[in-house]
Amino acid sequence: MTQIDRLRRSVAVEIQKLRAGTPETFTDHVATEEPLEIRLVASDGTFTRISVTMRTPGDDFELAVGFLFTEGILTARDSVKAIAFAEASGDQAGNIVNVCVDDSVDLDPARFQRNFYTTSSCGVCGKGSLEALVIQGCAPPRGSGPLVNASTILRLPAALRQAQSVFEETGGLHAAGLFDDEGNLLGLREDVGRHNALDKLIGKCFLAGELPLSDRVLLVSGRTSFELLQKAAMSGIPFVAGVGAPSSLAVDTARAFGITLVGFLRRDGFNIYAGAARVQMDL
Amino acid sequence: MTQIDRLRRSVAVEIQKLRAGTPETFTDHVATEEPLEIRLVASDGTFTRISVTMRTPGDDFELAVGFLFTEGILTARDSVKAIAFAEASGDQAGNIVNVCVDDSVDLDPARFQRNFYTTSSCGVCGKGSLEALVIQGCAPPRGSGPLVNASTILRLPAALRQAQSVFEETGGLHAAGLFDDEGNLLGLREDVGRHNALDKLIGKCFLAGELPLSDRVLLVSGRTSFELLQKAAMSGIPFVAGVGAPSSLAVDTARAFGITLVGFLRRDGFNIYAGAARVQMDL
Repeated sequence: MTQIDRLRRSVAVEIQKLRAGTPETFTDHVATEEPLEIRLVASDGTFTRISVTMRTPGDDFELAVGFLFTEGILTARDSVKAIAFAEASGDQAGNIVNVCVDDSVDLDPARFQRNFYTTSSCGVCGKGSLEALVIQGCAPPRGSGPLVNASTILRLPAALRQAQSVFEETGGLHAAGLFDDEGNLLGLREDVGRHNALDKLIGKCFLAGELPLSDRVLLVSGRTSFELLQKAAMSGIPFVAGVGAPSSLAVDTARAFGITLVGFLRRDGFNIYAGAARVQMDL
Repeated sequence: MTQIDRLRRSVAVEIQKLRAGTPETFTDHVATEEPLEIRLVASDGTFTRISVTMRTPGDDFELAVGFLFTEGILTARDSVKAIAFAEASGDQAGNIVNVCVDDSVDLDPARFQRNFYTTSSCGVCGKGSLEALVIQGCAPPRGSGPLVNASTILRLPAALRQAQSVFEETGGLHAAGLFDDEGNLLGLREDVGRHNALDKLIGKCFLAGELPLSDRVLLVSGRTSFELLQKAAMSGIPFVAGVGAPSSLAVDTARAFGITLVGFLRRDGFNIYAGAARVQMDL
Protein backbone atom coordinates (compact mmCIF):
# COMPACT_ATOMS: atom_id res chain seq x y z
CA MET A 1 0.00 0.00 0.00
CA THR A 2 2.87 2.33 0.76
CA GLN A 3 4.02 1.93 -2.79
CA ILE A 4 0.62 2.72 -4.24
CA ASP A 5 0.31 5.74 -1.98
CA ARG A 6 3.67 7.08 -2.95
CA LEU A 7 2.88 6.66 -6.62
CA ARG A 8 -0.31 8.64 -6.15
CA ARG A 9 1.36 11.59 -4.42
CA SER A 10 2.06 13.24 -7.73
CA VAL A 11 0.80 12.97 -11.28
CA ALA A 12 2.76 13.52 -14.49
CA VAL A 13 1.22 16.03 -16.89
CA GLU A 14 2.32 17.27 -20.31
CA ILE A 15 2.74 21.03 -20.22
CA GLN A 16 4.15 23.91 -22.21
CA LYS A 17 7.09 25.46 -20.43
CA LEU A 18 8.13 28.97 -21.31
CA ARG A 19 11.55 30.11 -20.14
CA ALA A 20 13.88 32.46 -21.97
CA GLY A 21 11.63 32.87 -24.98
CA THR A 22 10.96 29.50 -26.55
CA PRO A 23 8.09 27.35 -25.34
CA GLU A 24 8.76 23.66 -25.12
CA THR A 25 6.67 20.66 -24.28
CA PHE A 26 7.71 19.20 -20.98
CA THR A 27 6.56 16.54 -18.53
CA ASP A 28 5.87 18.14 -15.17
CA HIS A 29 4.74 16.57 -11.91
CA VAL A 30 1.87 18.11 -9.98
CA ALA A 31 0.78 17.23 -6.45
CA THR A 32 -2.20 14.90 -6.44
CA GLU A 33 -5.40 16.40 -5.06
CA GLU A 34 -8.32 14.01 -4.53
CA PRO A 35 -11.29 14.05 -2.15
CA LEU A 36 -11.23 11.76 0.88
CA GLU A 37 -14.49 10.88 2.58
CA ILE A 38 -14.14 10.09 6.28
CA ARG A 39 -16.81 7.81 7.76
CA LEU A 40 -17.36 6.81 11.36
CA VAL A 41 -18.64 3.22 11.62
CA ALA A 42 -20.50 2.11 14.77
CA SER A 43 -20.20 -1.38 16.25
CA ASP A 44 -23.51 -2.37 14.61
CA GLY A 45 -22.11 -1.51 11.19
CA THR A 46 -24.09 1.68 10.57
CA PHE A 47 -21.98 4.60 9.42
CA THR A 48 -22.02 8.39 9.45
CA ARG A 49 -20.33 10.54 6.81
CA ILE A 50 -18.27 12.99 8.82
CA SER A 51 -16.37 15.00 6.27
CA VAL A 52 -14.93 15.15 2.81
CA THR A 53 -11.56 16.83 2.50
CA MET A 54 -9.45 17.56 -0.56
CA ARG A 55 -6.13 15.88 0.17
CA THR A 56 -3.02 14.34 -1.32
CA PRO A 57 -3.38 10.53 -1.14
CA GLY A 58 -1.09 8.80 1.34
CA ASP A 59 -1.30 8.40 5.12
CA ASP A 60 -5.08 8.44 4.71
CA PHE A 61 -5.79 6.45 7.89
CA GLU A 62 -3.66 8.88 9.88
CA LEU A 63 -5.44 11.78 8.25
CA ALA A 64 -8.84 10.33 9.13
CA VAL A 65 -8.12 9.72 12.81
CA GLY A 66 -6.10 12.94 13.11
CA PHE A 67 -9.06 14.90 11.79
CA LEU A 68 -11.51 13.07 14.08
CA PHE A 69 -9.23 13.71 17.06
CA THR A 70 -8.61 17.40 16.40
CA GLU A 71 -12.36 17.87 15.90
CA GLY A 72 -12.97 16.39 19.35
CA ILE A 73 -14.91 13.41 17.95
CA LEU A 74 -12.29 10.81 18.95
CA THR A 75 -10.56 11.16 22.30
CA ALA A 76 -9.08 7.74 23.15
CA ARG A 77 -6.87 5.49 21.04
CA ASP A 78 -8.68 2.43 22.41
CA SER A 79 -12.01 3.54 20.98
CA VAL A 80 -10.73 2.88 17.44
CA LYS A 81 -11.29 -0.77 16.57
CA ALA A 82 -10.28 -0.81 12.92
CA ILE A 83 -9.51 1.50 10.01
CA ALA A 84 -10.00 0.43 6.41
CA PHE A 85 -10.75 1.75 2.96
CA ALA A 86 -14.40 1.25 2.12
CA GLU A 87 -15.09 -1.19 -0.69
CA ALA A 88 -15.57 0.91 -3.76
CA SER A 89 -14.93 0.51 -7.42
CA GLY A 90 -13.12 2.52 -10.04
CA ASP A 91 -12.17 6.08 -9.27
CA GLN A 92 -13.57 5.99 -5.75
CA ALA A 93 -11.36 3.10 -4.61
CA GLY A 94 -9.04 4.37 -1.91
CA ASN A 95 -10.96 7.61 -1.45
CA ILE A 96 -13.29 6.53 1.38
CA VAL A 97 -11.95 5.63 4.83
CA ASN A 98 -14.04 3.77 7.42
CA VAL A 99 -12.99 4.41 11.02
CA CYS A 100 -14.67 1.70 13.11
CA VAL A 101 -15.22 2.72 16.73
CA ASP A 102 -16.64 1.16 19.88
CA ASP A 103 -19.68 2.32 21.83
CA SER A 104 -17.70 4.88 23.85
CA VAL A 105 -17.85 7.28 20.87
CA ASP A 106 -20.97 9.44 20.78
CA LEU A 107 -22.49 9.01 17.33
CA ASP A 108 -25.47 11.33 17.77
CA PRO A 109 -25.77 13.18 14.43
CA ALA A 110 -26.82 16.40 16.21
CA ARG A 111 -23.41 16.38 17.83
CA PHE A 112 -21.65 16.40 14.48
CA GLN A 113 -23.74 19.25 13.26
CA ARG A 114 -22.64 21.22 16.30
CA ASN A 115 -19.15 20.02 15.77
CA PHE A 116 -18.96 21.16 12.20
CA TYR A 117 -20.15 24.49 13.26
CA THR A 118 -17.22 24.76 15.59
CA THR A 119 -14.88 23.37 12.95
CA SER A 120 -14.95 26.25 10.63
CA SER A 121 -15.92 28.79 13.21
CA CYS A 122 -15.81 27.95 16.88
CA GLY A 123 -18.39 30.64 17.51
CA VAL A 124 -18.69 33.78 15.52
CA CYS A 125 -16.33 36.21 17.16
CA GLY A 126 -12.68 35.36 17.72
CA LYS A 127 -13.29 35.29 21.45
CA GLY A 128 -16.07 32.78 20.84
CA SER A 129 -13.56 30.68 18.91
CA LEU A 130 -11.22 30.53 21.88
CA GLU A 131 -14.07 29.71 24.27
CA ALA A 132 -15.17 26.87 22.01
CA LEU A 133 -11.69 25.37 22.26
CA VAL A 134 -11.97 25.33 26.03
CA ILE A 135 -15.36 23.61 25.70
CA GLN A 136 -13.81 21.03 23.38
CA GLY A 137 -11.41 20.10 26.17
CA CYS A 138 -8.42 22.20 25.20
CA ALA A 139 -6.25 23.22 28.11
CA PRO A 140 -2.94 25.04 28.26
CA PRO A 141 -0.01 22.63 27.83
CA ARG A 142 0.72 20.60 30.92
CA GLY A 143 4.05 21.42 32.50
CA SER A 144 6.18 24.20 31.20
CA GLY A 145 6.98 22.64 27.84
CA PRO A 146 10.40 22.48 26.24
CA LEU A 147 13.10 25.15 26.35
CA VAL A 148 14.48 25.48 22.84
CA ASN A 149 17.70 27.18 21.81
CA ALA A 150 17.41 29.95 19.23
CA SER A 151 20.17 28.24 17.24
CA THR A 152 18.10 25.05 17.16
CA ILE A 153 15.03 26.90 15.93
CA LEU A 154 17.05 28.43 13.09
CA ARG A 155 18.02 24.93 11.90
CA LEU A 156 14.47 23.52 11.70
CA PRO A 157 13.41 24.74 8.23
CA ALA A 158 16.49 23.24 6.56
CA ALA A 159 15.85 19.93 8.34
CA LEU A 160 12.25 19.96 7.15
CA ARG A 161 13.16 20.84 3.58
CA GLN A 162 15.85 18.17 3.45
CA ALA A 163 13.44 15.46 4.59
CA GLN A 164 10.71 16.79 2.36
CA SER A 165 12.83 16.77 -0.76
CA VAL A 166 12.69 12.98 -0.80
CA PHE A 167 9.08 13.14 -1.89
CA GLU A 168 8.65 16.67 -3.07
CA GLU A 169 9.08 17.24 -6.75
CA THR A 170 5.99 19.30 -7.41
CA GLY A 171 6.44 22.51 -5.43
CA GLY A 172 2.81 22.10 -4.43
CA LEU A 173 2.90 20.39 -1.04
CA HIS A 174 2.68 21.86 2.43
CA ALA A 175 4.66 20.11 5.15
CA ALA A 176 4.22 19.70 8.90
CA GLY A 177 7.20 18.41 10.88
CA LEU A 178 7.42 17.31 14.51
CA PHE A 179 10.73 17.83 16.33
CA ASP A 180 12.10 17.22 19.80
CA ASP A 181 13.59 20.11 21.76
CA GLU A 182 17.02 19.49 20.27
CA GLY A 183 15.76 19.84 16.72
CA ASN A 184 15.65 16.16 15.78
CA LEU A 185 12.93 15.46 13.24
CA LEU A 186 10.52 12.84 14.61
CA GLY A 187 7.87 12.89 11.92
CA LEU A 188 6.93 14.65 8.69
CA ARG A 189 3.71 14.66 6.71
CA GLU A 190 2.84 16.44 3.47
CA ASP A 191 -0.35 17.48 1.74
CA VAL A 192 -1.82 20.01 -0.67
CA GLY A 193 -3.73 21.30 2.37
CA ARG A 194 -1.74 22.54 5.35
CA HIS A 195 -4.46 21.43 7.79
CA ASN A 196 -4.33 17.93 6.29
CA ALA A 197 -0.55 17.72 6.67
CA LEU A 198 -0.95 18.52 10.36
CA ASP A 199 -3.88 16.12 10.84
CA LYS A 200 -1.78 13.35 9.27
CA LEU A 201 1.05 14.09 11.69
CA ILE A 202 -1.27 14.21 14.72
CA GLY A 203 -3.10 11.09 13.54
CA LYS A 204 0.21 9.22 13.37
CA CYS A 205 0.93 10.18 16.99
CA PHE A 206 -2.64 9.36 18.05
CA LEU A 207 -2.37 5.84 16.63
CA ALA A 208 1.03 5.38 18.30
CA GLY A 209 -0.40 6.43 21.67
CA GLU A 210 1.93 9.44 21.86
CA LEU A 211 -0.59 12.17 22.69
CA PRO A 212 -0.45 14.73 24.25
CA LEU A 213 2.68 16.04 22.54
CA SER A 214 3.67 18.14 25.55
CA ASP A 215 7.40 18.32 24.84
CA ARG A 216 7.40 18.66 21.08
CA VAL A 217 8.05 21.44 18.58
CA LEU A 218 5.89 21.74 15.45
CA LEU A 219 7.14 23.39 12.25
CA VAL A 220 4.78 24.18 9.37
CA SER A 221 6.00 25.18 5.93
CA GLY A 222 3.66 28.11 5.40
CA ARG A 223 1.61 30.61 7.32
CA THR A 224 -0.04 29.93 10.65
CA SER A 225 -3.79 30.39 11.03
CA PHE A 226 -6.35 29.75 13.75
CA GLU A 227 -6.99 26.30 12.31
CA LEU A 228 -3.38 25.15 12.80
CA LEU A 229 -3.15 26.57 16.32
CA GLN A 230 -6.47 24.93 17.20
CA LYS A 231 -5.08 21.55 16.12
CA ALA A 232 -1.84 22.15 18.04
CA ALA A 233 -3.85 23.06 21.15
CA MET A 234 -6.01 19.94 20.86
CA SER A 235 -2.92 17.71 20.71
CA GLY A 236 -1.04 19.51 23.50
CA ILE A 237 1.78 20.89 21.33
CA PRO A 238 3.39 23.76 23.31
CA PHE A 239 5.66 25.17 20.57
CA VAL A 240 4.61 26.08 17.01
CA ALA A 241 6.89 27.63 14.39
CA GLY A 242 5.89 28.74 10.91
CA VAL A 243 8.04 29.76 7.98
CA GLY A 244 5.46 32.40 7.10
CA ALA A 245 3.31 35.00 8.83
CA PRO A 246 0.77 34.26 11.57
CA SER A 247 -2.77 35.61 11.55
CA SER A 248 -4.21 37.66 14.39
CA LEU A 249 -6.32 34.76 15.64
CA ALA A 250 -3.32 32.43 15.52
CA VAL A 251 -1.53 34.86 17.86
CA ASP A 252 -4.59 35.16 20.14
CA THR A 253 -4.98 31.39 20.32
CA ALA A 254 -1.31 30.85 21.10
CA ARG A 255 -1.45 33.43 23.90
CA ALA A 256 -4.70 32.06 25.34
CA PHE A 257 -3.38 28.50 25.48
CA GLY A 258 0.19 29.16 26.54
CA ILE A 259 1.65 28.04 23.22
CA THR A 260 4.90 29.53 21.94
CA LEU A 261 4.39 30.91 18.43
CA VAL A 262 7.32 31.68 16.15
CA GLY A 263 6.77 33.22 12.71
CA PHE A 264 8.80 34.35 9.69
CA LEU A 265 11.36 31.69 10.55
CA ARG A 266 14.20 32.35 8.11
CA ARG A 267 17.88 31.51 8.00
CA ASP A 268 18.90 34.71 9.78
CA GLY A 269 16.22 35.08 12.41
CA PHE A 270 12.59 34.84 13.45
CA ASN A 271 9.79 36.61 15.29
CA ILE A 272 8.28 35.40 18.57
CA TYR A 273 4.57 36.21 18.79
CA ALA A 274 3.79 34.37 22.02
CA GLY A 275 5.51 32.39 24.76
CA ALA A 276 9.01 33.88 24.39
CA ALA A 277 10.06 32.30 27.70
CA ARG A 278 10.55 28.94 25.96
CA VAL A 279 13.19 30.37 23.60
CA GLN A 280 16.76 30.36 24.94
CA MET A 281 18.91 33.05 23.38
CA ASP A 282 22.19 31.26 22.70
CA LEU A 283 23.31 33.20 19.66
CA MET B 1 -17.51 51.64 6.93
CA THR B 2 -14.62 51.47 4.52
CA GLN B 3 -12.44 53.14 7.08
CA ILE B 4 -13.42 50.72 9.84
CA ASP B 5 -12.85 47.80 7.53
CA ARG B 6 -9.43 48.98 6.54
CA LEU B 7 -8.46 49.49 10.14
CA ARG B 8 -9.47 45.93 10.92
CA ARG B 9 -7.39 44.35 8.13
CA SER B 10 -4.39 44.10 10.38
CA VAL B 11 -3.71 44.15 14.08
CA ALA B 12 -0.65 45.51 15.88
CA VAL B 13 1.03 43.03 18.23
CA GLU B 14 4.07 43.35 20.48
CA ILE B 15 6.60 40.70 19.53
CA GLN B 16 10.22 39.69 20.12
CA LYS B 17 12.21 40.01 16.93
CA LEU B 18 15.45 38.08 16.60
CA ARG B 19 17.80 39.12 13.80
CA ALA B 20 21.59 39.04 13.92
CA GLY B 21 21.77 37.89 17.50
CA THR B 22 20.01 40.35 19.74
CA PRO B 23 16.31 40.01 20.42
CA GLU B 24 14.35 43.22 20.54
CA THR B 25 10.79 44.11 21.32
CA PHE B 26 9.02 45.29 18.22
CA THR B 27 5.51 46.20 17.10
CA ASP B 28 4.49 43.95 14.24
CA HIS B 29 1.31 43.91 12.18
CA VAL B 30 -0.47 40.63 11.57
CA ALA B 31 -3.34 40.02 9.18
CA THR B 32 -6.69 39.99 10.95
CA GLU B 33 -8.46 36.61 10.97
CA GLU B 34 -12.02 36.57 12.30
CA PRO B 35 -14.99 34.30 11.61
CA LEU B 36 -17.77 35.58 9.34
CA GLU B 37 -21.19 33.96 9.53
CA ILE B 38 -23.16 34.14 6.29
CA ARG B 39 -26.96 34.02 6.63
CA LEU B 40 -29.60 33.82 3.94
CA VAL B 41 -32.74 35.76 4.93
CA ALA B 42 -36.06 34.94 3.27
CA SER B 43 -38.70 37.54 2.43
CA ASP B 44 -40.67 36.55 5.56
CA GLY B 45 -37.66 37.35 7.74
CA THR B 46 -36.67 33.77 8.65
CA PHE B 47 -33.01 33.04 8.16
CA THR B 48 -30.71 30.08 7.51
CA ARG B 49 -27.10 29.94 8.64
CA ILE B 50 -25.21 28.94 5.50
CA SER B 51 -21.56 28.99 6.47
CA VAL B 52 -18.95 30.37 8.80
CA THR B 53 -15.62 31.18 7.19
CA MET B 54 -12.40 32.46 8.74
CA ARG B 55 -11.65 35.62 6.85
CA THR B 56 -9.93 39.01 6.98
CA PRO B 57 -12.58 41.69 7.66
CA GLY B 58 -13.34 44.01 4.75
CA ASP B 59 -15.46 43.51 1.64
CA ASP B 60 -17.66 41.25 3.73
CA PHE B 61 -20.81 41.80 1.65
CA GLU B 62 -18.89 40.89 -1.49
CA LEU B 63 -17.47 37.83 0.25
CA ALA B 64 -20.95 36.71 1.32
CA VAL B 65 -22.57 36.99 -2.11
CA GLY B 66 -19.45 35.70 -3.86
CA PHE B 67 -19.53 32.59 -1.68
CA LEU B 68 -23.26 32.11 -2.21
CA PHE B 69 -22.80 32.49 -5.97
CA THR B 70 -19.83 30.14 -6.34
CA GLU B 71 -21.72 27.58 -4.23
CA GLY B 72 -24.62 27.76 -6.69
CA ILE B 73 -27.03 29.10 -4.05
CA LEU B 74 -27.43 32.51 -5.69
CA THR B 75 -27.66 32.73 -9.46
CA ALA B 76 -29.19 36.13 -10.30
CA ARG B 77 -28.19 39.57 -9.10
CA ASP B 78 -31.86 40.58 -8.93
CA SER B 79 -32.65 37.94 -6.32
CA VAL B 80 -30.58 39.86 -3.73
CA LYS B 81 -32.78 42.49 -2.08
CA ALA B 82 -30.47 43.76 0.64
CA ILE B 83 -27.20 42.96 2.40
CA ALA B 84 -26.50 44.12 5.94
CA PHE B 85 -24.56 43.23 9.05
CA ALA B 86 -26.83 41.52 11.57
CA GLU B 87 -27.48 43.45 14.74
CA ALA B 88 -25.07 42.07 17.28
CA SER B 89 -23.19 43.45 20.21
CA GLY B 90 -19.56 43.45 21.28
CA ASP B 91 -17.13 41.12 19.56
CA GLN B 92 -19.73 39.74 17.18
CA ALA B 93 -20.61 43.11 15.68
CA GLY B 94 -19.63 43.10 12.04
CA ASN B 95 -19.06 39.35 11.95
CA ILE B 96 -22.52 38.25 10.78
CA VAL B 97 -23.82 39.17 7.31
CA ASN B 98 -27.51 38.88 6.35
CA VAL B 99 -28.12 38.40 2.64
CA CYS B 100 -31.82 39.08 2.08
CA VAL B 101 -33.23 37.34 -1.00
CA ASP B 102 -36.55 37.13 -2.80
CA ASP B 103 -38.69 34.03 -3.29
CA SER B 104 -36.79 32.91 -6.40
CA VAL B 105 -34.02 31.50 -4.17
CA ASP B 106 -34.66 27.95 -3.03
CA LEU B 107 -34.28 27.94 0.75
CA ASP B 108 -34.98 24.25 1.35
CA PRO B 109 -32.49 23.20 4.08
CA ALA B 110 -32.02 19.78 2.47
CA ARG B 111 -30.59 21.60 -0.51
CA PHE B 112 -27.89 23.25 1.57
CA GLN B 113 -26.91 19.99 3.10
CA ARG B 114 -26.41 18.64 -0.38
CA ASN B 115 -24.70 21.80 -1.32
CA PHE B 116 -22.22 21.65 1.50
CA TYR B 117 -21.42 18.16 0.58
CA THR B 118 -20.45 19.30 -2.86
CA THR B 119 -18.61 22.31 -1.47
CA SER B 120 -15.77 20.47 0.07
CA SER B 121 -16.02 17.48 -2.18
CA CYS B 122 -18.17 17.53 -5.26
CA GLY B 123 -18.43 13.77 -5.08
CA VAL B 124 -15.79 11.50 -3.78
CA CYS B 125 -13.53 10.80 -6.72
CA GLY B 126 -12.00 13.60 -8.74
CA LYS B 127 -14.18 12.60 -11.70
CA GLY B 128 -17.21 12.93 -9.43
CA SER B 129 -16.01 16.43 -8.53
CA LEU B 130 -15.98 17.46 -12.17
CA GLU B 131 -19.41 15.93 -12.80
CA ALA B 132 -20.80 17.84 -9.82
CA LEU B 133 -19.63 21.09 -11.40
CA VAL B 134 -21.59 20.27 -14.54
CA ILE B 135 -24.65 19.57 -12.37
CA GLN B 136 -24.17 22.93 -10.63
CA GLY B 137 -24.51 24.61 -14.01
CA CYS B 138 -20.87 25.03 -14.94
CA ALA B 139 -20.22 25.08 -18.63
CA PRO B 140 -17.04 25.67 -20.62
CA PRO B 141 -16.45 29.39 -21.17
CA ARG B 142 -18.67 30.88 -23.84
CA GLY B 143 -16.79 32.02 -26.91
CA SER B 144 -13.10 31.42 -27.25
CA GLY B 145 -12.00 33.70 -24.43
CA PRO B 146 -9.16 36.21 -24.62
CA LEU B 147 -5.86 35.80 -26.44
CA VAL B 148 -3.14 37.00 -24.07
CA ASN B 149 0.44 37.85 -24.99
CA ALA B 150 3.15 35.99 -23.09
CA SER B 151 4.79 39.34 -22.35
CA THR B 152 1.54 40.55 -20.77
CA ILE B 153 1.28 37.44 -18.59
CA LEU B 154 4.84 38.00 -17.32
CA ARG B 155 3.87 41.48 -16.14
CA LEU B 156 0.83 40.43 -14.08
CA PRO B 157 2.52 39.45 -10.77
CA ALA B 158 4.33 42.78 -10.48
CA ALA B 159 1.07 44.64 -11.15
CA LEU B 160 -0.67 42.61 -8.46
CA ARG B 161 2.11 43.12 -5.92
CA GLN B 162 2.24 46.83 -6.60
CA ALA B 163 -1.48 47.24 -6.00
CA GLN B 164 -1.37 44.91 -3.02
CA SER B 165 1.43 46.79 -1.30
CA VAL B 166 -0.98 49.63 -0.51
CA PHE B 167 -2.67 47.46 2.06
CA GLU B 168 -0.22 44.69 2.66
CA GLU B 169 2.10 45.16 5.58
CA THR B 170 1.69 41.78 7.24
CA GLY B 171 3.04 39.25 4.73
CA GLY B 172 -0.01 37.19 5.61
CA LEU B 173 -2.56 37.94 2.93
CA HIS B 174 -3.42 36.09 -0.23
CA ALA B 175 -4.49 38.15 -3.20
CA ALA B 176 -6.75 37.56 -6.19
CA GLY B 177 -6.59 40.02 -9.08
CA LEU B 178 -8.78 40.38 -12.14
CA PHE B 179 -7.21 41.70 -15.36
CA ASP B 180 -8.32 42.41 -18.88
CA ASP B 181 -6.51 40.76 -21.80
CA GLU B 182 -4.02 43.62 -21.99
CA GLY B 183 -2.95 43.18 -18.39
CA ASN B 184 -4.84 46.11 -16.87
CA LEU B 185 -5.83 45.42 -13.28
CA LEU B 186 -9.61 45.72 -12.88
CA GLY B 187 -10.01 44.52 -9.33
CA LEU B 188 -8.03 43.14 -6.38
CA ARG B 189 -9.16 41.50 -3.18
CA GLU B 190 -7.11 40.15 -0.27
CA ASP B 191 -7.72 37.70 2.54
CA VAL B 192 -5.98 35.27 4.87
CA GLY B 193 -7.82 32.58 2.89
CA ARG B 194 -7.18 32.35 -0.83
CA HIS B 195 -10.72 31.10 -1.49
CA ASN B 196 -12.10 34.13 0.35
CA ALA B 197 -9.99 36.54 -1.69
CA LEU B 198 -11.47 35.02 -4.86
CA ASP B 199 -15.04 35.00 -3.48
CA LYS B 200 -14.66 38.70 -2.61
CA LEU B 201 -13.53 39.44 -6.16
CA ILE B 202 -16.34 37.40 -7.73
CA GLY B 203 -18.87 38.89 -5.31
CA LYS B 204 -17.83 42.39 -6.38
CA CYS B 205 -18.46 41.47 -10.02
CA PHE B 206 -21.74 39.71 -9.13
CA LEU B 207 -23.07 42.84 -7.43
CA ALA B 208 -21.96 44.99 -10.37
CA GLY B 209 -23.80 42.70 -12.81
CA GLU B 210 -20.55 41.80 -14.59
CA LEU B 211 -20.85 38.01 -14.61
CA PRO B 212 -19.92 35.86 -16.47
CA LEU B 213 -16.31 37.07 -16.67
CA SER B 214 -15.81 35.53 -20.11
CA ASP B 215 -12.98 37.78 -21.28
CA ARG B 216 -11.03 38.19 -18.06
CA VAL B 217 -7.74 36.90 -16.68
CA LEU B 218 -7.48 35.89 -13.02
CA LEU B 219 -4.19 35.92 -11.10
CA VAL B 220 -3.86 34.38 -7.64
CA SER B 221 -0.87 34.95 -5.40
CA GLY B 222 -0.32 31.35 -4.35
CA ARG B 223 -0.99 27.84 -5.51
CA THR B 224 -4.01 26.77 -7.53
CA SER B 225 -6.28 24.04 -6.19
CA PHE B 226 -9.58 22.50 -7.24
CA GLU B 227 -11.44 25.01 -5.09
CA LEU B 228 -10.07 28.03 -6.99
CA LEU B 229 -10.68 26.46 -10.40
CA GLN B 230 -14.21 25.53 -9.33
CA LYS B 231 -14.91 29.18 -8.45
CA ALA B 232 -13.36 30.35 -11.73
CA ALA B 233 -15.53 27.88 -13.66
CA MET B 234 -18.69 29.02 -11.85
CA SER B 235 -18.01 32.64 -12.77
CA GLY B 236 -17.00 31.93 -16.37
CA ILE B 237 -13.36 32.99 -16.06
CA PRO B 238 -11.50 31.43 -19.02
CA PHE B 239 -7.90 32.23 -17.96
CA VAL B 240 -6.36 31.49 -14.54
CA ALA B 241 -2.74 32.15 -13.59
CA GLY B 242 -1.06 31.29 -10.30
CA VAL B 243 2.29 32.34 -8.93
CA GLY B 244 2.67 28.86 -7.41
CA ALA B 245 2.09 25.25 -8.38
CA PRO B 246 -1.25 23.79 -9.45
CA SER B 247 -2.67 20.57 -8.02
CA SER B 248 -3.65 17.61 -10.19
CA LEU B 249 -7.35 18.33 -9.78
CA ALA B 250 -6.82 21.99 -10.65
CA VAL B 251 -5.28 20.81 -13.95
CA ASP B 252 -8.10 18.31 -14.55
CA THR B 253 -10.75 20.94 -13.86
CA ALA B 254 -9.10 23.47 -16.15
CA ARG B 255 -8.90 20.92 -18.97
CA ALA B 256 -12.49 19.71 -18.47
CA PHE B 257 -13.91 23.24 -18.59
CA GLY B 258 -11.71 24.73 -21.28
CA ILE B 259 -9.92 27.08 -18.87
CA THR B 260 -6.35 28.16 -19.55
CA LEU B 261 -4.20 27.38 -16.50
CA VAL B 262 -0.78 28.98 -16.02
CA GLY B 263 1.41 28.05 -13.04
CA PHE B 264 4.79 28.98 -11.57
CA LEU B 265 4.40 32.44 -13.03
CA ARG B 266 7.75 34.13 -12.35
CA ARG B 267 9.63 37.04 -13.82
CA ASP B 268 11.42 34.88 -16.39
CA GLY B 269 8.72 32.49 -17.49
CA PHE B 270 5.77 30.27 -16.68
CA ASN B 271 4.23 26.87 -17.29
CA ILE B 272 1.00 26.30 -19.21
CA TYR B 273 -0.98 23.36 -17.81
CA ALA B 274 -4.11 23.73 -19.94
CA GLY B 275 -5.51 25.83 -22.77
CA ALA B 276 -2.19 26.90 -24.35
CA ALA B 277 -4.03 28.18 -27.42
CA ARG B 278 -4.95 31.37 -25.55
CA VAL B 279 -1.30 32.30 -25.00
CA GLN B 280 0.33 34.27 -27.81
CA MET B 281 4.08 33.81 -27.93
CA ASP B 282 5.37 37.33 -28.56
CA LEU B 283 8.72 37.05 -26.77
